[in-house]
Amino acid sequence: KRPRDYGIRFGVIPTGPLNAITDVPGVRVGQVTLRQGTTIRTGVTAIVPHGGNLFQEKLPAAIYIGNGFGKLTGYSQVEELGTLETPIVLTNTLSVPTAADAVIDYTLNQPGNEQVRSLNPVVGETNDGFLNDIRGRHVTRQHVLDAIRNAKPGPVEEGSVGAGTGTVCFGYKGGIGTASRRLPASLGGYTVGVLVQTNFGGVLQIAGVPVGVALGQYSYKEKLDGSCMMVVLTDAPVDARNLKRLAKRAFLGLGHTGGIASNGSGDYVIAVSTAYQIPHQSSSPFDTLKLLRNDDTSPLFMAAIEATEEAIINSLFAAGQSPADTFSGTEGHSVKPLPVQKVVEMVGRK
Amino acid sequence: KRPRDYGIRFGVIPTGPLNAITDVPGVRVGQVTLRQGTTIRTGVTAIVPHGGNLFQEKLPAAIYIGNGFGKLTGYSQVEELGTLETPIVLTNTLSVPTAADAVIDYTLNQPGNEQVRSLNPVVGETNDGFLNDIRGRHVTRQHVLDAIRNAKPGPVEEGSVGAGTGTVCFGYKGGIGTASRRLPASLGGYTVGVLVQTNFGGVLQIAGVPVGVALGQYSYKEKLDGSCMMVVLTDAPVDARNLKRLAKRAFLGLGHTGGIASNGSGDYVIAVSTAYQIPHQSSSPFDTLKLLRNDDTSPLFMAAIEATEEAIINSLFAAGQSPADTFSGTEGHSVKPLPVQKVVEMVGRK
Amino acid sequence: KRPRDYGIRFGVIPTGPLNAITDVPGVRVGQVTLRQGTTIRTGVTAIVPHGGNLFQEKLPAAIYIGNGFGKLTGYSQVEELGTLETPIVLTNTLSVPTAADAVIDYTLNQPGNEQVRSLNPVVGETNDGFLNDIRGRHVTRQHVLDAIRNAKPGPVEEGSVGAGTGTVCFGYKGGIGTASRRLPASLGGYTVGVLVQTNFGGVLQIAGVPVGVALGQYSYKEKLDGSCMMVVLTDAPVDARNLKRLAKRAFLGLGHTGGIASNGSGDYVIAVSTAYQIPHQSSSPFDTLKLLRNDDTSPLFMAAIEATEEAIINSLFAAGQSPADTFSGTEGHSVKPLPVQKVVEMVGRK
Amino acid sequence: KRPRDYGIRFGVIPTGPLNAITDVPGVRVGQVTLRQGTTIRTGVTAIVPHGGNLFQEKLPAAIYIGNGFGKLTGYSQVEELGTLETPIVLTNTLSVPTAADAVIDYTLNQPGNEQVRSLNPVVGETNDGFLNDIRGRHVTRQHVLDAIRNAKPGPVEEGSVGAGTGTVCFGYKGGIGTASRRLPASLGGYTVGVLVQTNFGGVLQIAGVPVGVALGQYSYKEKLDGSCMMVVLTDAPVDARNLKRLAKRAFLGLGHTGGIASNGSGDYVIAVSTAYQIPHQSSSPFDTLKLLRNDDTSPLFMAAIEATEEAIINSLFAAGQSPADTFSGTEGHSVKPLPVQKVVEMVGRK
Repeated sequence: KRPRDYGIRFGVIPTGPLNAITDVPGVRVGQVTLRQGTTIRTGVTAIVPHGGNLFQEKLPAAIYIGNGFGKLTGYSQVEELGTLETPIVLTNTLSVPTAADAVIDYTLNQPGNEQVRSLNPVVGETNDGFLNDIRGRHVTRQHVLDAIRNAKPGPVEEGSVGAGTGTVCFGYKGGIGTASRRLPASLGGYTVGVLVQTNFGGVLQIAGVPVGVALGQYSYKEKLDGSCMMVVLTDAPVDARNLKRLAKRAFLGLGHTGGIASNGSGDYVIAVSTAYQIPHQSSSPFDTLKLLRNDDTSPLFMAAIEATEEAIINSLFAAGQSPADTFSGTEGHSVKPLPVQKVVEMVGRK
Repeated sequence: KRPRDYGIRFGVIPTGPLNAITDVPGVRVGQVTLRQGTTIRTGVTAIVPHGGNLFQEKLPAAIYIGNGFGKLTGYSQVEELGTLETPIVLTNTLSVPTAADAVIDYTLNQPGNEQVRSLNPVVGETNDGFLNDIRGRHVTRQHVLDAIRNAKPGPVEEGSVGAGTGTVCFGYKGGIGTASRRLPASLGGYTVGVLVQTNFGGVLQIAGVPVGVALGQYSYKEKLDGSCMMVVLTDAPVDARNLKRLAKRAFLGLGHTGGIASNGSGDYVIAVSTAYQIPHQSSSPFDTLKLLRNDDTSPLFMAAIEATEEAIINSLFAAGQSPADTFSGTEGHSVKPLPVQKVVEMVGRK
Repeated sequence: KRPRDYGIRFGVIPTGPLNAITDVPGVRVGQVTLRQGTTIRTGVTAIVPHGGNLFQEKLPAAIYIGNGFGKLTGYSQVEELGTLETPIVLTNTLSVPTAADAVIDYTLNQPGNEQVRSLNPVVGETNDGFLNDIRGRHVTRQHVLDAIRNAKPGPVEEGSVGAGTGTVCFGYKGGIGTASRRLPASLGGYTVGVLVQTNFGGVLQIAGVPVGVALGQYSYKEKLDGSCMMVVLTDAPVDARNLKRLAKRAFLGLGHTGGIASNGSGDYVIAVSTAYQIPHQSSSPFDTLKLLRNDDTSPLFMAAIEATEEAIINSLFAAGQSPADTFSGTEGHSVKPLPVQKVVEMVGRK
Repeated sequence: KRPRDYGIRFGVIPTGPLNAITDVPGVRVGQVTLRQGTTIRTGVTAIVPHGGNLFQEKLPAAIYIGNGFGKLTGYSQVEELGTLETPIVLTNTLSVPTAADAVIDYTLNQPGNEQVRSLNPVVGETNDGFLNDIRGRHVTRQHVLDAIRNAKPGPVEEGSVGAGTGTVCFGYKGGIGTASRRLPASLGGYTVGVLVQTNFGGVLQIAGVPVGVALGQYSYKEKLDGSCMMVVLTDAPVDARNLKRLAKRAFLGLGHTGGIASNGSGDYVIAVSTAYQIPHQSSSPFDTLKLLRNDDTSPLFMAAIEATEEAIINSLFAAGQSPADTFSGTEGHSVKPLPVQKVVEMVGRK
């Protein structure tokens, strides 16, 4: 059960039908979960923004760095050219190179890419080393290729799956979460979808309720560090400049949950629009674009804030709901899930 | 009465004795309020970080741009050199040049600055044009000089004063607000003080309670646009790089109140440390600095988030508490204050 | 006589007909020169990119900061929104506020702007305090308004005029310079025009010839500090992102002349396209743009490098050519012009 | 023979004894060259800034992005924290992940790093796909480890070696180049060393002489695209902020050679100081630093410009000097070396 199923609401904008990043038409998500023995707790989550050849038909994109203590690869080319040309892959910190290598494999081998000699894999990560034998680097290229290739539309599995298998958030079991917002037709009817990999600390708030303090587990009292990867997709026709602004609002959504972007956090937002494609090669020197005006971006900004907040909380609810779901991993470490029953009472009491 | 006097709490870190930016030792604030006739509703707020000659004894500083639809002047030199060399002045949008000119007057005329031929005034603004005849540019250099010169330690007047005289926040009367946090000795004992000029929109939350929705006045339902200037002072020994990170957390504090950094907002954070001074001229080619390590910055980050949130809400409480405080201005416009009684009940009910 | 009249060539791309920023159709330049008594050596240069109401019909724009030890105002809004909404004004360091105030005057008073309550003046500067009584702030709003209003197409006066009246470059008399490049039709036929205000140091090279060293006057041997403002206009249809890239290439052009972007320099490039306009208000939520693809920008980049280099050298040639042109100013200071005869011989000998 | 051996001079500052990046005390360089069969022309160059455990004793660092069409990994953490914690590795575009993986191997296995679970490999690249079967990804982890482990002080091999094995610059054979500058004691006595991997286009100038035009091979006439990696080391005590400024000057040095930073270029500068170390863990919350003041940085800036220019030209001279040195590679492609004899005459004639 997701927070909404308990009657918890985040913000004021309606969700899309699935309340997931896949509410943005054409977006697919694939995940591979590695949960083996007592020490391997990691995985891969791939977000594939359209069904064609992404290298040949690039999408406008931007990356916002909330706090850069992280190893995301692919930043500068997205920043310079304003486009994404590969699927987005999330995994653990030390497996970024493996994942990037696999994205290269994937792209070089796509039909039509026989002449490609340069491409920019975008891979993000958080550090699951508390529960996962991260030094063992158990993610293989094949895992990454599988995640990309099994990507599908529809509901997205949340919680301790894919790149969220071994993550910890606010001291509870974190994981993958997703949510979406759909603007009314009067504001353009656009969808904003968010997927997060939650592995960070702070003072947990759920729908504004200071749950972390009530439960006695929060930054300042103890050290809760870590990172959050956020992926924002939209079908609104916005270019890289406005996507960067949109990405920045996802960071505010992280703030809503009580995230503090601590020194040790790698908080990145990758924002992509599916509204138009930029062909790799063109017979024309021009791209003709119909772009949303600056003046009309604020509702999108709100949607990104709300969906990010909800996606993060969704990840916590999905990672387990009672002590029986305690998640154990490497070195005998274990992490309890958010005590959902208590939390629902607290939030309901407000 | 401030929110704390009603029992409302923001975050988990204790405040400084005044819960004001002036809790940072040596920091002074001066304000000039222009409320004349039916059309003039503006003013000046000056933050003077130390009592000496700021040009000769500069302070480490950084400016974070949350959303740059604003006219703050002085950005690039602070970014390049990492220092502040004048008081910080806040005023209305169209009076930034007047204020900058006055800061030049002030600095050129300080004893010891007889040879100064270049200086970087830092002036921020929000747009009070709904209540104030902003096109009349009623702020004079003398007003600005008065604000700088009457700057004093101790409690800071909040609400519809100084640069906050004519501002509007979440559709209610905004203004100047301030707050502080003091870390325990075990975390360094540092103070973080914040002063804000609130003039922005979003979906108001107070201590997590969705007050804006409950009161039926929020962005998305209607257009609530605008800006927020945030000034963060600390006595922690952090350089420009870490001050920029600290500044970015104030933006998360704005998010906590429901601010959305809408397209039309100019959201800037100016962060300054008073822990050490960089002399304008030196007989040595070196500055010897004892700086807080990256690893120890997270509690400061939390302090900036909390103090910014509280300073913003303080500004609303101080700007009036009942319909009798409705604030009228130019063109027959008027703005109601936050209905504090109702709000206190809502927040108390949680 | 300009360097080209002596047979000196910069780069490989043909110039526009005037070899001036005004080769970009519709661009006008206006200047006011203040040379009074023995101490006033300053002025104003205004670049007006189109003949209409710039606030109502904004232009895509970007600002690149080479070295930010300067006081340019207007940066953040251009960065955030990607547009310019006022003329660009250059003046001396301490007169930036006066000039910004005048740009506000100008814009508020333009027919059609009766409701404007917020606008972003873009004003750049260099420091002419060696020759000019800069502390006296002799530039008035009227001077600035005159510069804007007398802006005209056609040849641009170079040398010790306008904002270049009191500037010093490589230890010689600097000033205003301009140049342009026009791409062949096969590369789009676009024009790139540059105007500079030269006030910086380094090791002067002219068309690659190390003139500074030969003449015995260069940074490292002595301290030659200071700043350069560069304005790049083009009629190529490029948006803010690619304009920022274009602006960055002007900085390489500065490098070609031997500029080192010393610690004390404020090196800014303002780049604007006149190819399309972004209306302030629109009945549509969309802007439909036909933009040059990334792949086709490199020739523009070259043009910006070449035109900037030539504009800088043009400023030196125009500021005087023989010792008789020695320029005297405040406090008995005087600056010799570049010894053009010698230089022409050196460059010719290569 | 290097350009200096032909009497060609770049700038005015003396070189270090080796005129190489290894003139900075403690800096070592290791290279592995892959030249196999007719298709493999690639390699690895590793720069190891000090002889200890870089992860445990980090160095202040910054990365400047000249043009970001490239796949450098490691940017954001250096930007956020201001430190480098691994050797710097250069290779080809599609081998970045392999190299990053090897840097992880190397670091995890260093004595003292048994508990390390997060680290930030810094790997840069240019695209050698014209001469090298880049899609074959022939660089292995072992090659990278070998490059790191065979790193040594002393002279650095230049030309078609290491990461420069298959690169092309200005249409001629490019490669690895290095140079240095040593400031006189009166300016601090600091050394600035540069190493470049040259693979870019433009209008070649050597010591100011327009060689590219004279030889009839230059951008604008034909398309000469590509990238340049630049690594700047210094023993001057400068922090990340001033290292970023220093890095930016290397980009001006690239400009001096006629580089245009074309659309397709990935031009990155990684700047590192060896003057002090930041321990990964410390018993103190403070780092005490003795830093060069902003005012004293300009000579370093000049040194970076000059050394980068010379390093680039050195790479061309070292990659071959006569048609007999024509370098053949994959798909029957071949690239001529710079015709050094002719060039020396041209430059000598000036």
